[in-house]
Amino acid sequence: MDEKLSLKGIDTVALDEDKNCVVIIDQTLLPGDIRLKSVDDAGDMYDAIKRLEVRGAPAIGVFAAFGMYVLSKQMENKDYDAFISAFREKADFLNSSRPTAVNLSWALKRMKRVAEEDSSLPVPEIVSRLRTEALSIRDEDIEICRGIGEHGLSLLKPGAVLMTHCNAGSLATIRYGTATAPIYLGQEKGYNFRVYCDETRPLLQGARLTAFELSQYGVDTTVLCDNMSASLMAGGSVDAVLVGCDRVAVNGDAANKIGTSLLALAAKHYGVPFYVCAPSSTVDFETAEGKDIPIEMRDPDEVTEMWYSKRMAPKGVKVYNPAFDVTDHSLITGIITEEGVAYPPYTDSLKALLQK
Amino acid sequence: MDEKLSLKGIDTVALDEDKNCVVIIDQTLLPGDIRLKSVDDAGDMYDAIKRLEVRGAPAIGVFAAFGMYVLSKQMENKDYDAFISAFREKADFLNSSRPTAVNLSWALKRMKRVAEEDSSLPVPEIVSRLRTEALSIRDEDIEICRGIGEHGLSLLKPGAVLMTHCNAGSLATIRYGTATAPIYLGQEKGYNFRVYCDETRPLLQGARLTAFELSQYGVDTTVLCDNMSASLMAGGSVDAVLVGCDRVAVNGDAANKIGTSLLALAAKHYGVPFYVCAPSSTVDFETAEGKDIPIEMRDPDEVTEMWYSKRMAPKGVKVYNPAFDVTDHSLITGIITEEGVAYPPYTDSLKALLQK
Repeated sequence: MDEKLSLKGIDTVALDEDKNCVVIIDQTLLPGDIRLKSVDDAGDMYDAIKRLEVRGAPAIGVFAAFGMYVLSKQMENKDYDAFISAFREKADFLNSSRPTAVNLSWALKRMKRVAEEDSSLPVPEIVSRLRTEALSIRDEDIEICRGIGEHGLSLLKPGAVLMTHCNAGSLATIRYGTATAPIYLGQEKGYNFRVYCDETRPLLQGARLTAFELSQYGVDTTVLCDNMSASLMAGGSVDAVLVGCDRVAVNGDAANKIGTSLLALAAKHYGVPFYVCAPSSTVDFETAEGKDIPIEMRDPDEVTEMWYSKRMAPKGVKVYNPAFDVTDHSLITGIITEEGVAYPPYTDSLKALLQK
Repeated sequence: MDEKLSLKGIDTVALDEDKNCVVIIDQTLLPGDIRLKSVDDAGDMYDAIKRLEVRGAPAIGVFAAFGMYVLSKQMENKDYDAFISAFREKADFLNSSRPTAVNLSWALKRMKRVAEEDSSLPVPEIVSRLRTEALSIRDEDIEICRGIGEHGLSLLKPGAVLMTHCNAGSLATIRYGTATAPIYLGQEKGYNFRVYCDETRPLLQGARLTAFELSQYGVDTTVLCDNMSASLMAGGSVDAVLVGCDRVAVNGDAANKIGTSLLALAAKHYGVPFYVCAPSSTVDFETAEGKDIPIEMRDPDEVTEMWYSKRMAPKGVKVYNPAFDVTDHSLITGIITEEGVAYPPYTDSLKALLQK
């Protein structure tokens, strides 16, 4: 590892109150360069989400909350009607940046509720309440990830060989990550997990981000191409798969980074437990099943241009580039939330666990 | 498509008798550049195979046969004992370049049999017979691929949407390819197939080679990342999968490019017929089942360095990089050979078809 590059002590998404901006680690530059980026404009916030400078469903939620606070602070001299109208417009704009993850709209809804709660209050007081709400969303994220880590760890044995896809790590949240939370907690307790990271084409979040952050924290990490999971599992080398998710439907169908459902098929075939790690904010009780989750289709260049370097496919060829897929609930062993682990049938268990 | 780049009329592997060398299209430079490379030295031949400048089980077989003829021609002034000893040494050396494909050793065995057949003959006469044998192996490859194409086409309907993995195309053989042979024959007959090509990490033979050659011949071609097949099939978009193979065991287990078995799992799950296109030389009656096939492990840099450009994984991280995997016979709908299509149980059907 390059000792000069360290993620330790840097939050994935932070609020700089002195400069009234949101500060992110620009994830498009990892693992080569750790560069912080400050954002204080709605257009730049939209772009940061769209270009995956900030990514991961929970991190996007916190980023949007901080972003709306920063934008509100800029407007605190307006009267309420002008304020709330601009607030709604900017919230809707940010919400349109990525369709699949539910946390983005969930965080924006929470901020909107605070902004709309009492129109008789002075706008600066509303802005102050928005600050409190945004910081709560951030703090809850850390607690939620820790909870997922504890529930997840209870399912794993020391020395286990784990596999994950994309980055549901610290870089996708504020701290701990979702799928990595049990790994980090296990690491603290000397569990000595070994972790295989799918590289996760096209944007290589597994190779660039997950392998990077796990290695930085001393976890025994191996990268493999997405098409190698069946080969690895056929050799009996994997004890469990842990993945994050962007949205869970009522029946347990889970949308996550493209390739997750294929990995789940391999796990099912080879008898490897497959766990989805999901903050309760990711469970969408308004979505009945996976086919109702909108799947973002992304730019063909992400596939053909190989992370902005040499072109790897012939010019003019067509490209299929969905950002996510839906893993059928029948392929999921358990859904690990901060409130506990839900098991099939999910239509009952998710409600019992989360709709108390 | 870049009109200046055309594969038409160029054989993947050719013999230049005037210069006594083998001429290949250097496939590491595709699709950006079509450059021919001449090889006349055993070390360069080994490297050309190892570095995948020439690749694809059938093409490697023809290349090795041409190579042994070129090397023999250089030694035709030796006496028989010195000739055959050097011949065996060079054949064993070439045979060690890649372990998984059976065609390499199959072609070398055929050449060796000719070299050893009659030690009383003048060495130049033996060399002349080696030339005839090498040209036969080449001509047979073309006929065999055409046969696979005809049998394969009988299983497909006009307008079908097909999927393939890696490159089992014209660039992996002399002409037609194996998995692409039904596609090219269908194209000639106006079948209007649409073809999805897995990009095939780590070396992207699907994106770089298959999408390139199919596009050049006017086939409607779409590239996707290897992890997207389940998403595509879940939408009901694929009518059949056609792949090549490097070795088929007696029970039908088929070794092919890494990721093939994962694609087969997806096909099985979504009810999509999965066909392995295999020249009879690929069926190894000395290998009982898939686990007996040696799987080549390749350099970690192939995964982390992204086709020799920008590094995409953290320094020092471990890498799992098998070149092939084995698809269990239970996942294979049929094995298409030049003699016809074998169906389960393969232990009976392959023998009946090929061991007449």
